[in-house]
Amino acid sequence: AGDTAEPGELSRRLAFLAEADQLKSVYRANTLIDGSRRENSAEHSWHLALYALILGGMAGAGVNPARVIRMLLIHDLVEIDVGDVPLHSAAGQAHGSAAIQKAEAIAARRIFGLLPDAQARDLLALWSEFEAASTPDAIFAKALDRCQPAIQNLQSGGAGWREYRVTFDDIATRVGTKVHLGAPDLWRWLEVGLRSHFG
Amino acid sequence: AGDTAEPGELSRRLAFLAEADQLKSVYRANTLIDGSRRENSAEHSWHLALYALILGGMAGAGVNPARVIRMLLIHDLVEIDVGDVPLHSAAGQAHGSAAIQKAEAIAARRIFGLLPDAQARDLLALWSEFEAASTPDAIFAKALDRCQPAIQNLQSGGAGWREYRVTFDDIATRVGTKVHLGAPDLWRWLEVGLRSHFG
Ligand SMILES: [Ca+2]
Repeated sequence: AGDTAEPGELSRRLAFLAEADQLKSVYRANTLIDGSRRENSAEHSWHLALYALILGGMAGAGVNPARVIRMLLIHDLVEIDVGDVPLHSAAGQAHGSAAIQKAEAIAARRIFGLLPDAQARDLLALWSEFEAASTPDAIFAKALDRCQPAIQNLQSGGAGWREYRVTFDDIATRVGTKVHLGAPDLWRWLEVGLRSHFG
Repeated sequence: AGDTAEPGELSRRLAFLAEADQLKSVYRANTLIDGSRRENSAEHSWHLALYALILGGMAGAGVNPARVIRMLLIHDLVEIDVGDVPLHSAAGQAHGSAAIQKAEAIAARRIFGLLPDAQARDLLALWSEFEAASTPDAIFAKALDRCQPAIQNLQSGGAGWREYRVTFDDIATRVGTKVHLGAPDLWRWLEVGLRSHFG
């Protein structure tokens, strides 16, 4: 309590929160379930945090759901500068490319750098941990980040997949591996739906 | 870990998460800061959870920021059935009316009732606590829920206020009281901007 006694710190935090508003204007490849429009990265981040709240109990040992929620709330802020790079675009070669990773790292330093220094460092470290996907929290968070758009696509009839001519095998590789690692029960459930959709 | 061994429980959780997708189609009175469109309640909920993450350190004693984040992630789900009732509509008499409160309570039972029973009870209790606004966590969450739209309106030039002919005094009453109670530093900051906007 009371760590904002210095007025400049509150202004920096509110400048960051105003900057974050722009994530509501970054649109993704997948649509809402009713197919009415594409989903934006802010509401996607909300949905993912809600996934973590609801499914946190099924995570493996060593996962802290509250920390996963924080990670998912901030994981896409870099898209304010870089945009969303669809997982299935360019035959799966664009997402996670070295060029995109470099641009995202620059964006993370700029955006988290709006905050007071200690908080900027903490959130930059949390974002980097998500990107590296090697701790239990990040592995679970990545599993949710991969499975939510697949569920949106499945339940909306595959609109976001047709555009990129996505096959069952593409999804098994680009989605299944990470979902199976972080949330195996969820992958088993999703695989049934995917086989039925593509079968 | 492993509390979803029963397959029916996972299906109920995923049905709830699919239902939640509809919150992305509920639009509010205030716009994005760039004025390009109205904000929806899903991205508003994300922004609020991010407010709690960033400003949690300035909360009073006895506030648990992780719990406030969970509260804010679920606080507007009832709007899937009831819609958003703008704070300043009907001269401030619609928001929080007995009729709206009753409709929201019915919606909460339906929507959280999609979940496995124990989780449904937990989240219904968390939502009710937010609505009652009498615990430290709920008082802080309410302060953020009141101040974020005021900041959006202020930074977008007051588009959402003109529609309802809102005055400084309206905001001091309907927003200021709750923000001052839960986050007094934030109200002091906001009051300066409001006086300049309306002055
Ligand atoms: Ca992403």
